[in-house]
Amino acid sequence: MNRKNLTFILAITMVCSSCHKKESIMEQEKTAATIIAMEKAALEEWNKGNPSGYLNIYAEDITYFDPFQEKRFDGFEKMQTFYEGLRGQVQAKHYEMIDPKVQIADSMAVLSFNYLVTLSETEVYRWNCTEVYRQQPDKQWKIIHNHWSFIRPMDMDFSNVKE
Amino acid sequence: MNRKNLTFILAITMVCSSCHKKESIMEQEKTAATIIAMEKAALEEWNKGNPSGYLNIYAEDITYFDPFQEKRFDGFEKMQTFYEGLRGQVQAKHYEMIDPKVQIADSMAVLSFNYLVTLSETEVYRWNCTEVYRQQPDKQWKIIHNHWSFIRPMDMDFSNVKE
Repeated sequence: MNRKNLTFILAITMVCSSCHKKESIMEQEKTAATIIAMEKAALEEWNKGNPSGYLNIYAEDITYFDPFQEKRFDGFEKMQTFYEGLRGQVQAKHYEMIDPKVQIADSMAVLSFNYLVTLSETEVYRWNCTEVYRQQPDKQWKIIHNHWSFIRPMDMDFSNVKE
Repeated sequence: MNRKNLTFILAITMVCSSCHKKESIMEQEKTAATIIAMEKAALEEWNKGNPSGYLNIYAEDITYFDPFQEKRFDGFEKMQTFYEGLRGQVQAKHYEMIDPKVQIADSMAVLSFNYLVTLSETEVYRWNCTEVYRQQPDKQWKIIHNHWSFIRPMDMDFSNVKE
């Protein structure tokens, strides 16, 4: 093979590799948008007192932390019992997902965001949230791990917090 | 193909599939053990005041929540500055990783555990911890997301907590 041919092949390879990278970045952006939209839809339902939005996208092997529990919750059944007990109880006036970020590798994606929710004039809460999504065999994304915590609990007045 | 041959081929396929599943489960158990060992090694260093254990296994795109920060930390540089400021400050008398669980899919793994640490007689803290690990191109696992929060901060006396 002469130098001209080799240069041509190298150039084509570089173009293909660059296209592949662009496709992969576009694919990741699409996945990130899908996951943020799923989370927002579940939050919207949650804030109307309906936990089904989350229950529909929790995987069988979901693990869960929030600041009220002594121990991690393991498994869908545990979450279902817990969330059904809260059905109808949350009515948010306003909420905001702040600075969501999605980190993706293969069939898993981590969504992290800050969250501001106003339940009443005296009840405004600020949260850190982590959601780990996994793509199921049917290509649907489901949550396998969820961690909610208060931002700077040392500054909080817990007397208004309903458990 | 006669029925005998077909049965034989089906049996072989089932045995292969079962072997593959066993291999895959063994592979996952090995990965889980690796990740728990990595976390314990980093924690051991942390509890002697050395943040390098964690810094060595944080990826470039690490994202981080803890209860003291107003906002998520994004990126290794931010974490390095933050952790170097804490070098030499933590001296734990005793710590315990409680009920660690690893959920794995392809090149990502979520480790979650409860954590009990005794700094002094009056300073015993209970934490929820999430660590998301990703396998790098060189096959090493690194942490891409870390979320620390207090268990039931509403029960805590924060007057002893050093920020």
